[in-house]
Amino acid sequence: KDRASAVAVVKAGEQQAEIITTASTGNAAAALSGICASVGQKNVIFVPESAPPAKIAQLLVYNSTVMLVKGTYDDAFELCLEAADEYGWYNRNTGYNPYMTEGKKTAAYEICEQMKWQAPEVIFVSVGDGCIIGGLHKGLRDLRALGWIDRMPRLIGVQAEGSNFLYQAWKNGEDVLEKAPVCGQTIADSISAGLPRDRIKALAAVTETGGAFVQVSDDEILTAIPRLAQGSGVFGEPAGAAAFAGLVRAVEEGLVEANERIVILNTGNGLKDINSAMTGVEMTGIQPHHIEPSLDAVKALMGKP
Amino acid sequence: KDRASAVAVVKAGEQQAEIITTASTGNAAAALSGICASVGQKNVIFVPESAPPAKIAQLLVYNSTVMLVKGTYDDAFELCLEAADEYGWYNRNTGYNPYMTEGKKTAAYEICEQMKWQAPEVIFVSVGDGCIIGGLHKGLRDLRALGWIDRMPRLIGVQAEGSNFLYQAWKNGEDVLEKAPVCGQTIADSISAGLPRDRIKALAAVTETGGAFVQVSDDEILTAIPRLAQGSGVFGEPAGAAAFAGLVRAVEEGLVEANERIVILNTGNGLKDINSAMTGVEMTGIQPHHIEPSLDAVKALMGKP
Repeated sequence: KDRASAVAVVKAGEQQAEIITTASTGNAAAALSGICASVGQKNVIFVPESAPPAKIAQLLVYNSTVMLVKGTYDDAFELCLEAADEYGWYNRNTGYNPYMTEGKKTAAYEICEQMKWQAPEVIFVSVGDGCIIGGLHKGLRDLRALGWIDRMPRLIGVQAEGSNFLYQAWKNGEDVLEKAPVCGQTIADSISAGLPRDRIKALAAVTETGGAFVQVSDDEILTAIPRLAQGSGVFGEPAGAAAFAGLVRAVEEGLVEANERIVILNTGNGLKDINSAMTGVEMTGIQPHHIEPSLDAVKALMGKP
Repeated sequence: KDRASAVAVVKAGEQQAEIITTASTGNAAAALSGICASVGQKNVIFVPESAPPAKIAQLLVYNSTVMLVKGTYDDAFELCLEAADEYGWYNRNTGYNPYMTEGKKTAAYEICEQMKWQAPEVIFVSVGDGCIIGGLHKGLRDLRALGWIDRMPRLIGVQAEGSNFLYQAWKNGEDVLEKAPVCGQTIADSISAGLPRDRIKALAAVTETGGAFVQVSDDEILTAIPRLAQGSGVFGEPAGAAAFAGLVRAVEEGLVEANERIVILNTGNGLKDINSAMTGVEMTGIQPHHIEPSLDAVKALMGKP
């Protein structure tokens, strides 16, 4: 989100826009808000009132004008488009502003650079609006056209069961321009989108690379947080851990082979949603020990040296 | 803290230690915990029960054995030393393990590298146990001895008023080996230390570079969080923002000149203590707007386009 927001701030500057605006489930907002603060650019952010406190706190700390909309992300999105139109604000919205994909696609460059231009066989990424997976696809196509990589990775989009518009459309061969919105309810707030704004690009990313969509339950997402952290040292927020939960599901479904090199994108820091992390920890049976400050208390827990 | 923890994990590996242990106010613990998870190294962490939930959550997510000690950081520290001794665990503790400074000092290398080997005139860093400022000093001395930098920056240590052992000792010329512990109470939990473990190195860092200690109140720290964020895009936790609050105080006290190049170290991510961030936001009068999802609601707030 930082990459896309950086592009937005530059483009808004070119147009001498007084105000940039975006609607967001929280992460795009925080990215835009922080980058605007660093260059003194005014901005107005629309987020659903239900966004996690940590994400709202970031916006206020950066002194953005924060509109907590009494409704869903989809409501906040529509309102933001209307307001941008009415006031002439520079519009950073995903699926509306074509430059956002140009920011996101640099993630593909970075992955391939770090893998010494040997593209992985598969990339897993969680999907809400679909802008990240669409951006990855564009970046990989750039590298393929340049001849810097010699294969196109399969892109596997992971959706939450409660916000699975693209999974449904892909599985049932539905037309994403005709299909009605889904409800959009999941613990993974960053990928909660009833009507994905970048659904055309997201579907193309999966179908054109021979990839797939998988869906995972909120329970699978929550337990994936500690499992991913313990296995890798990477502490992701629910939407980030969802990509790892998707890999687990994909293995079960035979979508990947044991000898394939697989990249998993973590799209958010675990500190952004501590409550979900603690729920995941409790579900996997991990507990802290409350002890008196005495060696006997340690011995009672740990046994003899 | 990541740098020091990485060194600890390597040294523990050399000794084939089954368990690494540390006491921590939270950040060193999280750093050690995450690095241990990434390499499958068992560890036992002692933190005061009062540590912020986000910091405790990180340890559990990584599946460290977490001892929440009913007492202060100083109690947790003493208990950890005893347990390490009793069980033969590898001891990462600040002020005990000499290799930690070797990790911390790399921050000095990075600062000078990023400034193209033109050392800044002054560096501000918040001080709890004193390991970071001691490490910076050592790193700068390395670079000076190598001739890679041609001046030694003045190091200014910032302490919270409620945990100002080193400020007191420096100002009053007290012997840090004789001086009784202070209470150690501040909203900046990461620099709350009644008896700084690396007090000898910390004092030397300031006196040998012609620097100073300054102290700041909890209110100055809390309001520094949004001010730093709004001016730079950097969102720090209380201990991180304290270094910026210290610069404000140092300007008032005439400790720095307007034409000097000054580096401020931010030692912790703001997401680690959202409650303090929100308190700082409220103190500076920033508020979000709760609105119905209608353009009229936006107009009521923003006025005519």
